[in-house]
Amino acid sequence: MSEGFYNCSVGITAPTPLGNLDDFVEDATQTGHDFVVVPIADDHYKRVLFEEADSKKQLNEWRAGLPLTPKDLVLKKVDWAGVCTGIFSDWIDLESEDDLIRINSEIALKQEATWAAHLGLPSVLLPILPSNTISNFARVMCSLTNILSYAQILIRVIISDGSEATGWTQWNTLYNLTEQNPKLNVALELSAQLPMEEDQIERWYSMPIKAVIIPANVFISNQKGFPVLPKRHQSFVKALMKKFKPSIIVTASELGLHQAGGPSAYQEYIRYLNRSLPPPDDVERFSVGYQDYLQAPLQPLMDNLESATYETFEKDPIKYQQYEKAVYHALLDRVPEGSDVVTVIMVVGAGRGPLVNCSIRAAEKANRKVRLYAVEKNPNALVTLQNMKDEVWHDLVTIVFSDMRKWVAPEKCDILVSELLGSFGDNELSPECLDGAQKFLKPDGISIPSSYTTYIAPLSSSKLCHEVAAYKDLEHSETPYVVMFQQVSHIAEPKPIWTFHHPNKDDFEADSDPLHNMHNVRFQSTTFQAKGNITMHGIAGYFDSVLYKDVMISIHPETHSPGMFSWFPIFFPLQTPVFVPEGATITIDYWRLTDNKKVWYEWRVGQSLNVVDKTIELGTTPVHNIGGRSSWIGL
Amino acid sequence: MSEGFYNCSVGITAPTPLGNLDDFVEDATQTGHDFVVVPIADDHYKRVLFEEADSKKQLNEWRAGLPLTPKDLVLKKVDWAGVCTGIFSDWIDLESEDDLIRINSEIALKQEATWAAHLGLPSVLLPILPSNTISNFARVMCSLTNILSYAQILIRVIISDGSEATGWTQWNTLYNLTEQNPKLNVALELSAQLPMEEDQIERWYSMPIKAVIIPANVFISNQKGFPVLPKRHQSFVKALMKKFKPSIIVTASELGLHQAGGPSAYQEYIRYLNRSLPPPDDVERFSVGYQDYLQAPLQPLMDNLESATYETFEKDPIKYQQYEKAVYHALLDRVPEGSDVVTVIMVVGAGRGPLVNCSIRAAEKANRKVRLYAVEKNPNALVTLQNMKDEVWHDLVTIVFSDMRKWVAPEKCDILVSELLGSFGDNELSPECLDGAQKFLKPDGISIPSSYTTYIAPLSSSKLCHEVAAYKDLEHSETPYVVMFQQVSHIAEPKPIWTFHHPNKDDFEADSDPLHNMHNVRFQSTTFQAKGNITMHGIAGYFDSVLYKDVMISIHPETHSPGMFSWFPIFFPLQTPVFVPEGATITIDYWRLTDNKKVWYEWRVGQSLNVVDKTIELGTTPVHNIGGRSSWIGL
Repeated sequence: MSEGFYNCSVGITAPTPLGNLDDFVEDATQTGHDFVVVPIADDHYKRVLFEEADSKKQLNEWRAGLPLTPKDLVLKKVDWAGVCTGIFSDWIDLESEDDLIRINSEIALKQEATWAAHLGLPSVLLPILPSNTISNFARVMCSLTNILSYAQILIRVIISDGSEATGWTQWNTLYNLTEQNPKLNVALELSAQLPMEEDQIERWYSMPIKAVIIPANVFISNQKGFPVLPKRHQSFVKALMKKFKPSIIVTASELGLHQAGGPSAYQEYIRYLNRSLPPPDDVERFSVGYQDYLQAPLQPLMDNLESATYETFEKDPIKYQQYEKAVYHALLDRVPEGSDVVTVIMVVGAGRGPLVNCSIRAAEKANRKVRLYAVEKNPNALVTLQNMKDEVWHDLVTIVFSDMRKWVAPEKCDILVSELLGSFGDNELSPECLDGAQKFLKPDGISIPSSYTTYIAPLSSSKLCHEVAAYKDLEHSETPYVVMFQQVSHIAEPKPIWTFHHPNKDDFEADSDPLHNMHNVRFQSTTFQAKGNITMHGIAGYFDSVLYKDVMISIHPETHSPGMFSWFPIFFPLQTPVFVPEGATITIDYWRLTDNKKVWYEWRVGQSLNVVDKTIELGTTPVHNIGGRSSWIGL
Repeated sequence: MSEGFYNCSVGITAPTPLGNLDDFVEDATQTGHDFVVVPIADDHYKRVLFEEADSKKQLNEWRAGLPLTPKDLVLKKVDWAGVCTGIFSDWIDLESEDDLIRINSEIALKQEATWAAHLGLPSVLLPILPSNTISNFARVMCSLTNILSYAQILIRVIISDGSEATGWTQWNTLYNLTEQNPKLNVALELSAQLPMEEDQIERWYSMPIKAVIIPANVFISNQKGFPVLPKRHQSFVKALMKKFKPSIIVTASELGLHQAGGPSAYQEYIRYLNRSLPPPDDVERFSVGYQDYLQAPLQPLMDNLESATYETFEKDPIKYQQYEKAVYHALLDRVPEGSDVVTVIMVVGAGRGPLVNCSIRAAEKANRKVRLYAVEKNPNALVTLQNMKDEVWHDLVTIVFSDMRKWVAPEKCDILVSELLGSFGDNELSPECLDGAQKFLKPDGISIPSSYTTYIAPLSSSKLCHEVAAYKDLEHSETPYVVMFQQVSHIAEPKPIWTFHHPNKDDFEADSDPLHNMHNVRFQSTTFQAKGNITMHGIAGYFDSVLYKDVMISIHPETHSPGMFSWFPIFFPLQTPVFVPEGATITIDYWRLTDNKKVWYEWRVGQSLNVVDKTIELGTTPVHNIGGRSSWIGL
């Protein structure tokens, strides 16, 4: 992957007044710009508002369909169309209280859009969002998507300076009014002052940003007089480049606000920023193509994993290192140095053997004698295990072909090693499997892992919302997905909901199989405090696990084991996006439920608002995935 | 229709302690009760909570599936099952914070439910709703609907006395948590004090009430010592009987709170109330079978109405009376008494001629000379018109077969009479039709109607919500329906949104056809103040019309023309129910939009809350029916 991994195209807006269009486009190209941003119509076209309404006849003829005239237009021919983003007229007022202006604005906007579609412009830019009501604007945007079926529609939103979050609020309302129409995108315009609060910046990561507009006055001059961005703007723009690869549009460059660099200075600086992004790290490289992509979680208990899946996960540089460390410390703690005691280690769910190798390496390093069993129910993986035994392990390892819940072990072990964890901790049924396997763990034996904890956080992501909605059925809106998050924003920090400990000596006779699975039922109600208004699309899930004492693995964002790529987060969608008002308390209820054949999760989200002396309930989603109707994990 | 039109069945709850079940059922039947309400399980069954948890082994065996024992049961055999409503144990606590009690309660409830299903009980009654959290309860109710696929599930809710609206709030939350599961019904228990505010009573009309529980202590004694209900209870129970025909359950009758009447007194009083309901009036009789039933609005412009449709609407006793009055006053105003002037009346959209007859009667009464044209585009109706001319009207009436928008009239008229109105006023395209017809109205001519106004109100109705949801598609959730409202509750009083006036002399040349239809576009944003928390399922639409001066017709609930049955209200659904918190302001935006081929409505609902010094936005629905994608009226 080259330096150009996060390359963005850079464009420039036409000066006012424009002068000669051909010259401008030629200059822009020669100064290194990839595209230009040009008004579709001339100011002359404002005539169609008929604000005076002096001629009813002309008004009616125009409303009946009279086309644009050449005098009305800036973009007249298709010569440059391929590199032009068309700007709609800024006098168009879709929220005017004056019926005449509002209705004529709509007709005019559609005329400009039809013309833009006719020219084949690759994208169009709407005027800045109205600051008061917005429902007419939203309605017209929806009908615009039919006219502009090929062009990218960019809605211009100014990121506010934090005191009044108008740009965000208006866009978010617009987006909800249009049912999060996937044809509508944000052209985010930076202001000289960015919002003070980091979450007011980060919430934009949940939105479909396709362009970033940087006015020349946002740039400061460096010591040599060249335009550069202030530090905070820099890091925000870099984050946007990584997450969205947006087009960058420079406006007002013709004002000559910066002494040095000439007309290509802004463009060159943006490309410099682009190049200065660090190349993707191991995890990022591993994730290419998976960002915001919904994957069904593995069901390794019901299904047999494929060789390629083992292959991929065995490459994790961190996970096995941590397991080795855990076994190493367990051995040191359990057996005195120099002892001849042979420690029996059973690796349950051995797969193709990586945890067997970890355990052997740990024993060598600890200088402790061990004997191992590798228990695996997948017959295909067993072939590899058998090979390993024949060629490497020999008598050190006994291979067992069995479901660990059914196996009748010839002896009990000192250390039970397993890795049956999913992105949500227990979602690959580690609790149920280990309930069955702990029969052959000695009363004072050690389970690695010794516990795992599940975390959740309310999440906003229009991208994930679109991905789920694309399935157009109930089932997919109640199914958890494994996702490498990219265009998402946490509405609040993750919180733990439950923990499983192993071995489990409290809930049933340690030596026998459990009669039922009710002890693995969990329920937790958790509250989160939302800061600004935002739309919630689902719940992010994470886990961490204590392998042994202080040896941990984690995919919790705050404590993520660096470089470990075996688990992406999990995402539980909501059937319908939930608007979270400023200051609301979000309550998320989670259930882990079970019957004789399966395990499933149910979840629901409620909201309330504390107002002076009372709490006002703001409603609730339905309980999702009732009875596991849409998604479950087979026992 | 007999006195028994609103008959309800009456049942009685078993006393505590029950004694002999057979005797109780026999007594109850002999004292005139239709059914009995009996516990499914004995108190002995509470053992399964294992609150002491002294025997893990027994707990686990029970959890693994040990069935109920005879000692656990009250209802043991199927003898009486057909007349029994089973009550679940009241110690079942699905919201306990103690995992043991909560999980065991769920298992116990399901065991009782399975037993009730096995016995084939026609209905079951849940314990009183928990008063704090309710999401576990809701989740379990959903899974109960699978066990009890044939029995009616009654959730017991106590109507509160108004100070704390716990019963309502808890039920409403429960219902939203279960996605308004149509298998869940309310058994509404009356308290001695009903809520003070009328809207706290009326909002129950939007809920699926299948039973009303009346404890004996709610009855007062009349002069002779017989139990009777207080006035307010009486009228509430009567309203419930009319709307829901619920089962009535009397509880605690064994306490002997009333001196006279004996064990059958309550039952007899309820049947007396039942009989005292006035028989259905004309409109109600006309509406039988149509209550809360969704009908697609007529499209008389695109489709030709059938003979039966004309037949039905011609029977309206009020509408034609009002039209006759309107024409009568118009004639009196327009022509001096004794004048020989012949007034030309054109009836456009004459159908089978009722408005022609009205006009002739009006002229006779006014003693004015008239000449009439009957313009109709439906060839089938024309046959009847021609018959009428041949047999009754002769030269007085000229029959014209034409679309009124296309007709080239041989002369201009003095009075243009039409009835092209829909439940939403303009939704059968009266504005567009009269735009075309007014060409042949004299400059000083009179249009009857002279105007019509559309009204909307936010509406709650679980019934209508279910009806729409049953279609399981987007289209039906964005289509307006004509509905005779019954199980509904207005969230706020209706407000006007727009008016059309005729003739229209402002928007285009009076003598010519309009070049376009933009002058019939309408937009209105209206706010409503909600009182208590409630769930909004859609919008009710009404109209009134000034036929001439003070001669009106109206289907607005406050001013409804008595006895007029030609129009039911209209209902615009919401895609997803909207929870309306206490004190919220509801904003409804409505659009009437048009292109060359059709007219359609779009709508959206937003909410906000005024908190001390600021307004907090609570979110918005999407704009519904964008571009008329789901419903429209053909021009």
